Parts: sequence; structure tokens; C-alpha cells
Amino acid sequence: MKQWEQYFRKVVPYVPGEQPNQPGMIKLNTNENPYPPSPKVKKAVEEFKTDNLRLYPDPASTVLTEALGKAYSLKNEQIFVGVGSDDVLATAFLTFFNSEEPILFPDITYSFYEVWAALYNIPYETLPLKEDFTIRKEDYYRKNGGIVIANPNAPTSLSLELDAVRDILEHNRESIVIVDEAYVDFGGESALSLLKEFENLLVVQTFSKSYSMAGIRIGYAFGAPSLIKALNDVKYSYNSYTMNQPSLYYGAEAVRDSDYHKEIIERIRKTRARTAENLCELGFTILDSRTNFLFAAHREVPAELIFEKLREKKIYVRYFKKPRIDNYLRITIGTDEEMAAFIDAVSGIIKTSILTNH
Amino acid sequence: MKQWEQYFRKVVPYVPGEQPNQPGMIKLNTNENPYPPSPKVKKAVEEFKTDNLRLYPDPASTVLTEALGKAYSLKNEQIFVGVGSDDVLATAFLTFFNSEEPILFPDITYSFYEVWAALYNIPYETLPLKEDFTIRKEDYYRKNGGIVIANPNAPTSLSLELDAVRDILEHNRESIVIVDEAYVDFGGESALSLLKEFENLLVVQTFSKSYSMAGIRIGYAFGAPSLIKALNDVKYSYNSYTMNQPSLYYGAEAVRDSDYHKEIIERIRKTRARTAENLCELGFTILDSRTNFLFAAHREVPAELIFEKLREKKIYVRYFKKPRIDNYLRITIGTDEEMAAFIDAVSGIIKTSILTNH
Repeated sequence: MKQWEQYFRKVVPYVPGEQPNQPGMIKLNTNENPYPPSPKVKKAVEEFKTDNLRLYPDPASTVLTEALGKAYSLKNEQIFVGVGSDDVLATAFLTFFNSEEPILFPDITYSFYEVWAALYNIPYETLPLKEDFTIRKEDYYRKNGGIVIANPNAPTSLSLELDAVRDILEHNRESIVIVDEAYVDFGGESALSLLKEFENLLVVQTFSKSYSMAGIRIGYAFGAPSLIKALNDVKYSYNSYTMNQPSLYYGAEAVRDSDYHKEIIERIRKTRARTAENLCELGFTILDSRTNFLFAAHREVPAELIFEKLREKKIYVRYFKKPRIDNYLRITIGTDEEMAAFIDAVSGIIKTSILTNH
Repeated sequence: MKQWEQYFRKVVPYVPGEQPNQPGMIKLNTNENPYPPSPKVKKAVEEFKTDNLRLYPDPASTVLTEALGKAYSLKNEQIFVGVGSDDVLATAFLTFFNSEEPILFPDITYSFYEVWAALYNIPYETLPLKEDFTIRKEDYYRKNGGIVIANPNAPTSLSLELDAVRDILEHNRESIVIVDEAYVDFGGESALSLLKEFENLLVVQTFSKSYSMAGIRIGYAFGAPSLIKALNDVKYSYNSYTMNQPSLYYGAEAVRDSDYHKEIIERIRKTRARTAENLCELGFTILDSRTNFLFAAHREVPAELIFEKLREKKIYVRYFKKPRIDNYLRITIGTDEEMAAFIDAVSGIIKTSILTNH
């Protein structure tokens, strides 16, 4: 080991879902939206002023925060934007979680929470979900350095009802509560309506899922002006200009097209219902998804085997080799055609496996 | 103060140069390039596949690192890319500077170094530049937790010769030495050629200046594969996808057009020589600039007064009200027309000030 390497920050990097790029593949592994972004985004690309790239972007990201403010009936000073919700959440961890008390989040949830806590030396404790993968809200009624709830949760796809979120907030008036709503548009209940009552609430959403713009890297947070200011202060102390011009202009157009947004969400929900039905018929147990993916376990055939057989057919879903969830598959909802091909493939795998006794 | 606010991270945010946006203004305050990006970037914008925005970008940023690798004769594993050189440098601070010894950098340099050190609780010590604003290399021959040298330095515009950089490296074989070369293309000597000899060297550059793409937010670092891996490990532990699709594709095209890159640099150097000459004639002392800006003090009229009078005429330059440099102006090199208008305005201000005894 070189002398200087002893001072490298020790990290356990997050392992994102693989990003295969094969002709003819069906990619249902990273919860991307199967539909293109709003046609208005195409127009924004066409009208983009390339010559202006010589200038720094607006550090306040005004064009984007104003579009978001209009869409969600909030003021600019209640909105923070970042390079994907990962950037927003990481910045929130760094900004808000500096107490000696551990922050709390479920044992099964977005695996990045643990990674950020480790990166920034934040003490944390994970609280086990119930057997049925729901959150026991009372677990969060205790001293803590902050709370993070993904709602709907991933990879379980389950939603926590708004009353329970409110209860958690009411029992935690002394620390910051982050509700990570990456998937909320597909059927969850947003905590946005609770912002008026709770100044310690931060609601985080993203352009990567319902807005169909994972490639543009935009996440945003809604909260009291004092929280947003704290986030911006920290942001300005590592990078004044995080949002590039394309993300500001392309993103603003996407958020202005709420009709299109609703339309593709509705399409995905219909495909989700149909896919869940088909999987049930094949012997799967499916959790009640409020997201753009299904969390499914087969009663007889192990998830890992299905996962591998699907890969051979160039159909990619997500499999987590982790305690409690290692018999589940996380299946992104694609187009109707993709899901028909997926069901077809799964059906064949299940039948062969049962016939040959795996 | 709310209960939770006591645990907010304490920061002293960096104050970026103001970003005025007035019709008819001349903007010489944030070292932007006056020329548009390469015409190839326009083509990349036109050919951009908007529909693909639904997908996550390549987390390894391969299209961009390959273009950089080709242009600078390096391998992919020697290149790290980030959201502007600020992101690259901040990530490098977080990754490499975890020793108890202070990191070292000059007292007058890019003011973000202090901000990052404070943000990540890194001990640091600033070493005074000599009276003439040059670096005394021997100051860096001592125990430390890392070294950061901006070369050319900002806001002084002065370059440290490569032999001195090598001497600093030779006396620091136990810690990481970062050479921040944001301005190197305008006349400095890059430490790139020293990479073969020094595994503890990290060279950081940017698209914001010579590539004329401040609005796209791309910075990059060259270093030994072990350093690049450490940077990527930390990057993956806060955000797997920092570079959005437009930055990858637009940036790759910019770096492929080396002829255009050379051409606009040459134009800026010519304008810089002419402007320096004109300012000398008006009674200014000018440091020997190897950057796209001049650092200039007038022998009689205070910098702050010139700065304010220029503002009234909607000509924006940068003024730092800081010890030792509070009689200097940092003037970005614009087009010939802009600089002619600037010289004209300064000439008027100087004459009036001297006539009226300020």
C-alpha cells in the first residue's frame, strides 16, 4: 500500500443495477420509464441555444424551480434542485444529519441510505419492517438524529398511508424527517400536503421515473424555506453550479406538460395491473405496488433461478441476494409488448422448472 | 432556533461572481470564454436522441472519457469526470484528505479550497505567496496531509514553471498533490507529463474555460488508476450517475474538435496581449497572465473605484475585497470589441478620477 492510500476515504460503493446494452434486450431492471419524455422536451432540445453554453448556468436554477413551483403550487424558496434525487438526498444527509443520535430508516429500503450514512460518518440504525414488509410506525417514536422513509418504499413497492406519515411527523418534532417519494406518482400519497404543518419535513422527488428523464439527472426537494436555504448553503459550499443548462431547460419543459405526465403514468398503471394479474396466474405472490415496478415471489420456483433464466433470454429484472428478500424479483413495468414478452418467458421458465423439479 | 437547526452543517458558502443578465452588458467577471463552443457541439445538440432520456446515463461516462483519453493520450482508467472541476476537486478533497496533518495551499488562490476543507472538516494551512504573488516552492517541503496548487493560479494569473511543480512532487512522495489546471490551456505548462513519474499526482482540468462550455458543467481529472478508482468509489457512494446524457454527448464532441479549441485559445491570447498593452499605457501594472484573464492594479486610482464606475456602465469585472489583493481587478478576456469598449471606459474613468483627484 502506498503511503497516501491509508488516508483514502473508506467507502462501500453502492452497486447500481447493471446497465446492459444489447440489441433486442428487454430492460426491466432499473425502474426506468418505458415511454419517451414529453414531446415538449424534444422541442426544448431543438430550440436549445448552444452558443450560450459558453456561460455559466444560473446558479439558482430559476427556470426549473419556477416551473416546479407552478406545477406543485409552491414558492421558489421552498424548492431545492439537484443532480438526481441521489444528489438531493446525499446533500440532505450531509446538511441535516450532524447529531450524535442515530438516524433511522427501515432495514429493507433504498440501499443508498446506508451508503451515504457511511460516507459522511453519520450514525444510523435500521429498523426491521414487519413480516409483510410494511412499516411499524411506532418504531419511529424514539430519540433519533433524523428519519428517512421511502414512500412508496423500494424494492417492496408498498405505500405507507398518509396518516401514518403524519403520525411519524407528530412524534418527531425535534428532528428532520425526509420522505423520499421517487415513486409516489404511480399511486402513493404525497406528504406535500403536510408541509404547511411540519417545518421539519423534507419531501424528495425525481425526474427519473414518472417524468421519464433518468438521463437528465434532476431531483428536487420541497420543504420549509429554512431547510431549503440550509441545503443551498451546503450546495454552494461544494459546487455553485450543479445543474447544467440542458437539465434546466429540458427539465422545465417536462414539468410544464402535466397532461403528458398523467397520461404515461396512467398507461403504466394499467400495464402494471395486467402484469400483476398474469403473474398471479403463474403462481406468484405480488405485493400491492404503488410504484412502476412489481415485487414478486414465486411459490415454488426460486427467484434467483428465474432471474438467471430470464437473463439468458436477454430479459433483465433486478434480484437482491439479501436476507428476507432473496426470493423476490423486482420487475420494472415496461410497455405492454415488453410485459407480454416477459410473461411469456416467465411462463416457460416456471413450467420447465416445475416439470424438471428445478 | 428550531431544535433540529442545531444539527445543520455549519458552512461558509463560496460566493461565486455575480451573474448579471442585462441587455448590452459586457461580462468580464467570471472568466467565461467569449466564443461559442465548437460547431461540432451544435451538431451534437441537433442529433441528440431525446427519447433516450428515459434511460439512465452510462455511469462510467465512457463516451466522454474515451474522447478525453484520445485527445490527451491516456487510458480510460486514468480519467475521472465530474460536474465541473468544482465537483471533481470537492470529490478529491473528500476522497484523499483524511489525514490529521493539514493540507497546504497558497493564501491567495481559488477561494473554494478553504470552503471544501471547512465543509469536510479537513485541517488546512495556507502558505503566503511571495510579495510578487509567486509561489515559494520550498514552503511545501514539509509534512502535510496533501497539497493543492492552482497552476496557473487564480486570481493572480501567474504560472508556476513545470520544474518547480516537479520539485514539489519530489519533496512530497507521501501525500497526494493536486494540480488544478483550470486555466492551463491559455499559456501554462501542464503537469500531465509528470503523471508517469508520480503516482500521487492528480491533474484537474475543465470544460468551462478553454472549451467554452461553462454551461455544461464538466471537469475531469488525470491520475494513476489507483487514484481514479478511489475517486470513482467515492463518487459511486454518493451518486452513481452524476453526468447527464447531454453533458456526455455534447462534451465528447467539444473535445474531439482540437483545431477549434486551439483556434479560440490563440484568439484569446492575442486579445490578452493587446489588452495588457493598452492597460499598461493607462498606468496599470499587469501580472504576466497565462490565463484568460488579467490581474491588474492602477498606480493611482483604487481598484474598487474603477470596479464601481465600470459597473455603472454595465461592464462587469471581478473585485476581491481581501487583504493584499484589494487594489487589483480581475478582468476576463472577452472579444476584441468587448475589450475595446472596456479600455475605452477604463480610460475615461482613469482620466476623470485623476482630474478630480478621485
